[in-house]
Amino acid sequence: MSGWLAVVGLGPGSEALVTPEVSETLAEATDVVGYGPYVERVPARDNLARHISDNREEIARAAQALELTASGRKVVIVSSGDPGVFAMASALYEALEAGPEQWRGLDIRILPGISAMLAASARVGAPLGHDFCCINLSDNLKPWTLIEKRLRLAAQADFAMAFYNPRSRARPEGFARALDTLQAECGPQRPIIFARAVYTDQETLQVTTLAEATPEMADMRTLVLVGSSQTRVIDGGGRRWVYTPRSVS
Amino acid sequence: MSGWLAVVGLGPGSEALVTPEVSETLAEATDVVGYGPYVERVPARDNLARHISDNREEIARAAQALELTASGRKVVIVSSGDPGVFAMASALYEALEAGPEQWRGLDIRILPGISAMLAASARVGAPLGHDFCCINLSDNLKPWTLIEKRLRLAAQADFAMAFYNPRSRARPEGFARALDTLQAECGPQRPIIFARAVYTDQETLQVTTLAEATPEMADMRTLVLVGSSQTRVIDGGGRRWVYTPRSVS
Repeated sequence: MSGWLAVVGLGPGSEALVTPEVSETLAEATDVVGYGPYVERVPARDNLARHISDNREEIARAAQALELTASGRKVVIVSSGDPGVFAMASALYEALEAGPEQWRGLDIRILPGISAMLAASARVGAPLGHDFCCINLSDNLKPWTLIEKRLRLAAQADFAMAFYNPRSRARPEGFARALDTLQAECGPQRPIIFARAVYTDQETLQVTTLAEATPEMADMRTLVLVGSSQTRVIDGGGRRWVYTPRSVS
Repeated sequence: MSGWLAVVGLGPGSEALVTPEVSETLAEATDVVGYGPYVERVPARDNLARHISDNREEIARAAQALELTASGRKVVIVSSGDPGVFAMASALYEALEAGPEQWRGLDIRILPGISAMLAASARVGAPLGHDFCCINLSDNLKPWTLIEKRLRLAAQADFAMAFYNPRSRARPEGFARALDTLQAECGPQRPIIFARAVYTDQETLQVTTLAEATPEMADMRTLVLVGSSQTRVIDGGGRRWVYTPRSVS
């Protein structure tokens, strides 16, 4: 039996956003590996072994998946959103590079998914419709000084911005500092969007300005989007759309 | 009859990447609107009117779709990739904002798709696995000086980068200048990836360095990815993986 490993993105929450490629790959797997809430999204069936690990155990989880693959199993590592955006694909290659030479010959595929930032963007219009950047605001794996530097340079480049992990329970003060930096660089009237748990039953969308934004508007399930200087807000039909035009005026 | 308008992403090329949400919406539509090659990806059927327009006619196309919706039709505007990334969603809101007040009450949805940048990233590993930016290199809708400024600031922020529309037939010299700027800012050994027509029969993937990159490696169907200072290349199994680690060393 010849094993393979696929790192797949399940999208932000709804099964309506899982690609056929990912569904078909899950149907052929012998083993599914991942963080509990993501593994639970995969329907149980006979001949499918489920390997659940805690959050923050990404490297151990990746190594386990590589070992299973080397033993001939057909293994899927599940991520939410897209596996290549602050998710399991990078952890897989970190484990691969640190592991035995034999692993490098394994059949490995990364299967894209609908990323949280693009799902959040779609739910409010097209705030990322022009040049943009995507920054993880967690300082677990990089120093806060680097986050701060990137925020300033991104604002000077006049990018629209998407922020992952805006506010952790362990370090809630970081996001308050990020909001202060953004307001200093971008001004108080810049649109900001708090998109929580998009494409789930708990979805909430809040469109406001940097002047009105407070750190409490974000939690660990929130994706935050900030417009560029060109971003516009349209009210209509009982809702508020946000978009960034294709051209620079 | 109550009309609605959905702007949908068909993904980069393969039907295996079209989400169930998009497929179901297309099945309910009365009208599909878009650039010819994208409209042709939608299976023909009775009671589906197809409205094909040229590339670069985005605003007229969006206005046509809004008029059809106002008249009670169920309309889908098709984009490749994700509609919110340099595609039809922003054009739709530009037309909405410039159009009659009545349009603002229409039932409008944006349905996300697999973006070309995330599909390209997946095909070579996880080059966008840490903070990154996404820049359209076409100077059709913004001055070249702004593109140049963004390239320099993005390099200083040490973002991984994704570039859309690297090289147009009309202005091939722009991409040569972009490569010069990137090499000056990032050094000659920085990994660069040319991902052409991903997830189609014509797919080609080329992993090289800024020193070895030439403008001719890109055309209008190429998505270009450049690593950050942390990005790593792994050879193994007859192929070359590129990934950006989750942490900064």
